[in-house]
Amino acid sequence: MRIMGIDPGIAIVGFGFVDKEGSKLTPVQYGSIQTAAHTPEEERLIQVYEGMVQLLDQYKPDEVAFEKLFFNRNVTNAMAVSQARGVLILAAVQRGLPIGEYTPMQVKQAIVGYGKAEKKQVQEMVRMFLKLQSVPKPDDVADALAVAICHAHSSTLNSKLNEVLRK
Amino acid sequence: MRIMGIDPGIAIVGFGFVDKEGSKLTPVQYGSIQTAAHTPEEERLIQVYEGMVQLLDQYKPDEVAFEKLFFNRNVTNAMAVSQARGVLILAAVQRGLPIGEYTPMQVKQAIVGYGKAEKKQVQEMVRMFLKLQSVPKPDDVADALAVAICHAHSSTLNSKLNEVLRK
Repeated sequence: MRIMGIDPGIAIVGFGFVDKEGSKLTPVQYGSIQTAAHTPEEERLIQVYEGMVQLLDQYKPDEVAFEKLFFNRNVTNAMAVSQARGVLILAAVQRGLPIGEYTPMQVKQAIVGYGKAEKKQVQEMVRMFLKLQSVPKPDDVADALAVAICHAHSSTLNSKLNEVLRK
Repeated sequence: MRIMGIDPGIAIVGFGFVDKEGSKLTPVQYGSIQTAAHTPEEERLIQVYEGMVQLLDQYKPDEVAFEKLFFNRNVTNAMAVSQARGVLILAAVQRGLPIGEYTPMQVKQAIVGYGKAEKKQVQEMVRMFLKLQSVPKPDDVADALAVAICHAHSSTLNSKLNEVLRK
């Protein structure tokens, strides 16, 4: 099963594709969609959408996992990122793909085992899980891979739970 | 010129189409796209997008005007509405339509001539401008028509300004 992880944004969208066989995770591709500052908001939205469509069509994931936004301060930024998140989710749902959503705390819990882990710890665990030589940059890319891994763990858990319940 | 006004939302999207000839405004169609509560967020997003696409293809506006969100309290709601706003803008930009954005204060200023006007005053002015028998319901529909009228006024102003500048 191929999972796409997404860290939504309007300037930078981090993405990461991970293949999951049993409990084994293999990185397939990762990077970011970036839009230029001072570009009209509506232009940036269509660039984000089209970048996402291209990635979905090229790497054909089976499921897509999104980081849930958590904001307590900058509402203007939260709204801009949410608009981008809307078009990213739309692209996935238009292709009939199941989606998952995880808060930063859920991601940390899944990766480090501790919901208040530091960013560096999460990044280092992502590097180790996927046997990468270095932590992918910018942070948004590492975050996207972390969401993909979190989703892989949750779906393993869900299928184990279903097995138990079926007995 | 046909203008579509939009009051974005995830539960209710208000819309209104207005034809503008010189300074004369004629209502063409207005109403709302509604999505059911307790429907998964991603389902609602695609319903909003598809409803918008259908309206754009049926009524073929020349320009689309969106109300800008103004939130100071409920960030969770702001994020949900922004996601919907993202897919609404996307649908318009995908069709190459110019878009305009207006804050509630700009809309009130354009309609009533006073940025802190009350909702009822704005609705009554919308009814009078468009010679409607009653104020359209729910409020989101009247708000969408108000945004369309605001955009019509701004573009009249812009073209007058351009005329003056050309001389």
